Amino acid sequence: MFLKNCWYVAAWDHELNDGKLLERTLLGETVLLYKTPDDAVVALDNRCCHRGAKLSQGRIEGDCVRCMYHGLKFDPSGACVQIPGQDRIPPKLGVKSYPVINKDHLVWIWMGDPALADPAGIIDIPYLRDPQWKGIPAYLHYDANYLLIVDNLSDFAHLAFVHTNTLGGSEEYAYVTKPVAIERLENGFRVERWHMNSDAPPFHKKVIPNKADKVDRRNIGHMQIPGIFLLESLFAPAGSGAEKGNLEGAREYRNCQFMTPETERSTHFFWNYLNNFEGTDYTISMSLLDSLIEGFLEDKEIIEHQQKVLDDDPGFKMTAVAADVALSHFRWTLDRMLEAEQSETAMAAE
Amino acid sequence: MFLKNCWYVAAWDHELNDGKLLERTLLGETVLLYKTPDDAVVALDNRCCHRGAKLSQGRIEGDCVRCMYHGLKFDPSGACVQIPGQDRIPPKLGVKSYPVINKDHLVWIWMGDPALADPAGIIDIPYLRDPQWKGIPAYLHYDANYLLIVDNLSDFAHLAFVHTNTLGGSEEYAYVTKPVAIERLENGFRVERWHMNSDAPPFHKKVIPNKADKVDRRNIGHMQIPGIFLLESLFAPAGSGAEKGNLEGAREYRNCQFMTPETERSTHFFWNYLNNFEGTDYTISMSLLDSLIEGFLEDKEIIEHQQKVLDDDPGFKMTAVAADVALSHFRWTLDRMLEAEQSETAMAAE
Amino acid sequence: MFLKNCWYVAAWDHELNDGKLLERTLLGETVLLYKTPDDAVVALDNRCCHRGAKLSQGRIEGDCVRCMYHGLKFDPSGACVQIPGQDRIPPKLGVKSYPVINKDHLVWIWMGDPALADPAGIIDIPYLRDPQWKGIPAYLHYDANYLLIVDNLSDFAHLAFVHTNTLGGSEEYAYVTKPVAIERLENGFRVERWHMNSDAPPFHKKVIPNKADKVDRRNIGHMQIPGIFLLESLFAPAGSGAEKGNLEGAREYRNCQFMTPETERSTHFFWNYLNNFEGTDYTISMSLLDSLIEGFLEDKEIIEHQQKVLDDDPGFKMTAVAADVALSHFRWTLDRMLEAEQSETAMAAE
Repeated sequence: MFLKNCWYVAAWDHELNDGKLLERTLLGETVLLYKTPDDAVVALDNRCCHRGAKLSQGRIEGDCVRCMYHGLKFDPSGACVQIPGQDRIPPKLGVKSYPVINKDHLVWIWMGDPALADPAGIIDIPYLRDPQWKGIPAYLHYDANYLLIVDNLSDFAHLAFVHTNTLGGSEEYAYVTKPVAIERLENGFRVERWHMNSDAPPFHKKVIPNKADKVDRRNIGHMQIPGIFLLESLFAPAGSGAEKGNLEGAREYRNCQFMTPETERSTHFFWNYLNNFEGTDYTISMSLLDSLIEGFLEDKEIIEHQQKVLDDDPGFKMTAVAADVALSHFRWTLDRMLEAEQSETAMAAE
Repeated sequence: MFLKNCWYVAAWDHELNDGKLLERTLLGETVLLYKTPDDAVVALDNRCCHRGAKLSQGRIEGDCVRCMYHGLKFDPSGACVQIPGQDRIPPKLGVKSYPVINKDHLVWIWMGDPALADPAGIIDIPYLRDPQWKGIPAYLHYDANYLLIVDNLSDFAHLAFVHTNTLGGSEEYAYVTKPVAIERLENGFRVERWHMNSDAPPFHKKVIPNKADKVDRRNIGHMQIPGIFLLESLFAPAGSGAEKGNLEGAREYRNCQFMTPETERSTHFFWNYLNNFEGTDYTISMSLLDSLIEGFLEDKEIIEHQQKVLDDDPGFKMTAVAADVALSHFRWTLDRMLEAEQSETAMAAE
Repeated sequence: MFLKNCWYVAAWDHELNDGKLLERTLLGETVLLYKTPDDAVVALDNRCCHRGAKLSQGRIEGDCVRCMYHGLKFDPSGACVQIPGQDRIPPKLGVKSYPVINKDHLVWIWMGDPALADPAGIIDIPYLRDPQWKGIPAYLHYDANYLLIVDNLSDFAHLAFVHTNTLGGSEEYAYVTKPVAIERLENGFRVERWHMNSDAPPFHKKVIPNKADKVDRRNIGHMQIPGIFLLESLFAPAGSGAEKGNLEGAREYRNCQFMTPETERSTHFFWNYLNNFEGTDYTISMSLLDSLIEGFLEDKEIIEHQQKVLDDDPGFKMTAVAADVALSHFRWTLDRMLEAEQSETAMAAE
């Protein structure tokens, strides 16, 4: 069961270049994504209404897509506009279309009631269009429910054990640091955590000159329904007073991550890890991309096994520890929204 | 659910040469097929009645087959005729046998009530034994219900889009031609379609000398319960009056295709595409075989995805268009026969 | 459904060397096995009680294991003894532990009620610790329910047909020999079978000097709940009077086999085939290991197909023949024990 009336990331817009007919399963529905000649993104049910052939095996013709089984043609609204060998087209014949918005290179899709789809509800991420922030859009597929990835990101303590030699840096992180704040928000949470006078973690060391210098490290994570995670990371010279606002000599990162359910047991994971200090040295973005892939594969190894554990024994119960405050609030909030959406849908059906 | 009281193609008879114990699942049942020394075909339940070991892992001994787990031996009627180390054989011990007929190199099997199996009910296809007609028996496996293949063959319009560069020839075919006749038959249908003054399609061009000459093309398809398709194709010089019966200079093909359910989601597809003009030039049969495989793989690509679409969402509903008259009649006819068979079986059981 | 209150073989103890965290599914439960620094074997639920991450992806620390997701540490009793970043540990927090015993290189596990786990109930197999008996511990994985392997071992007649060229020797074995005794035991059965004046079977020929000499062959099999099989084999010079107790010139083997359910459809199969005559010539053990693997792969080929037959048609019924006395008694006995265990569990729950 998924929250339907909200915006999900369906693709990076470059995935649709060169007239690609992209088939992607989103929230269990098989969707066709493509761009028209004037660069508008179209999202349709990928199944021809005639015999269920896949439109992604078809052909783009202008704004339209033609099914290459018996030749039915559909316009961007999903309406059937041609049936070869048949003069009259039944007026309601067609496939479902989905509201889509291309914003800052992210293709956002609305899987619920189209009447409720308000583009203003799409989160604004200014650094995705700020030329000072550089990064490489990336994608990973998970064989796990998207909430297991949300959980993972909700507790920075896992950096200490899962990512000791990549994104974390030391197991000490789990023992000596704690969130200085966990804010429960209406649609998610915000956490902040400092690690003073610590070694730089491996991924950061790879892209800075003075690798041995101690740093004061701050992570601020912001998780939002349905599965959007923004992470601001700061590495300041140890003792320079970053915690009081002095950012001289600090290096910063902005990470945005988007978890979109493919099915109940698989997830599309999009991210871009940006920095504001590489200038013209693109190898820094490349190094960070490699480090992030390395780190996320460590998560994937854990999380996909977690999914298998849950699949193998539906009776298995997790037990919360103190650090689960943020993830528990997120799941509680999501459950309330799901209930509300279900009851609205039920009332509308009466 | 399958129609049981009718003849299905189980194999080409050459598949049983050299004492082969062929295991083949037919209508969901695992069947053993083999030939006795005097060339009679035997079809038995492939599961030893003792412990369920597969008889296809056994050994032919004369007319009989021996299970190579504990050595039980079965004769062509399925009766157990030996149990090593045991003197008395319970009289009813044995495995089910199926009526089978080898006719014109096709092995036909009856999966229903043996008492109703009348060899006269097997369709007669004279060109399969006519030395003037040459072709190569062939086989393809589909991961799709057999009716999706029947559907495919029921509407020639798909030639235009699926097979443009192989069996079809042009998309024009779907726009300018229509069936001149669709006859609803008691056990299937017959359709006829002409394409006047057209280019020869690629598969035909490859085997004729004057490749650029325009042709008048006629297809007559005859589909029969449970899934037998006979196609007569004619290519006459454009304007020579073939539609009035003048066949001078015409080239003809006979195609027979047999769809036999393996399971609800997979199909054995047998065919032979014959020509009457190759004389001693066997490369024509070879070229046609290659062209047909190329074309059928185009169908398979569409149809297996269709099956996945149906599996993923049992609620998906197809919408008929005008061209679906023939396939709708076929499915309606099959459903009536299935209902009749079910109610007869139910009455017999009371 | 498995018998829980009995000892199963979980592993050979060498599998846990070098600090291995072995994940093994036993009776459908995912279990972590490891050795502490003082060589005690520990068996825990492999799922961290916090978020279900696999402890086998963790790290041994002294006697304990640490989950490498968020760092929870568990002692050999399964109790959680550390949560990084959290001072108080809820007293009941932990994972299930299983009674385990390391005896003669076999790791035995008790999957049922720990209060009933009596080490005295573990079968004693003296030749596993007798330096005169040499053999190599081995393992094979079956995609089949363990009872199909028990069945297989219950009737020596299969040696004649499945293993003619490996462990059996001739099909004659099934026709001219019979069990001289089948004893129904409270927890299994014992069978004895002689084959007088016969050729030595291939596996035995490979390790003896006078390969052409006729032998008197005796097999004594002892099968015990839940799936333990001990086989004593004797090859004496033909006519030397072995059946009257004269063992001069005889060669003997001891085989122990342990079938432990992984799931309802897969099995861990452990064995050791020992001889008492190799002295310092270890190539005899190696040859016997190779022969046994060769033979067991012949069984596996049959048995895994049997499992598929049963899966494909739950309505398929096996039919017993005279030779099935032993296996029928075993299954009957096991069913009685299962019923007793179920009703005890039900009563305890009231």
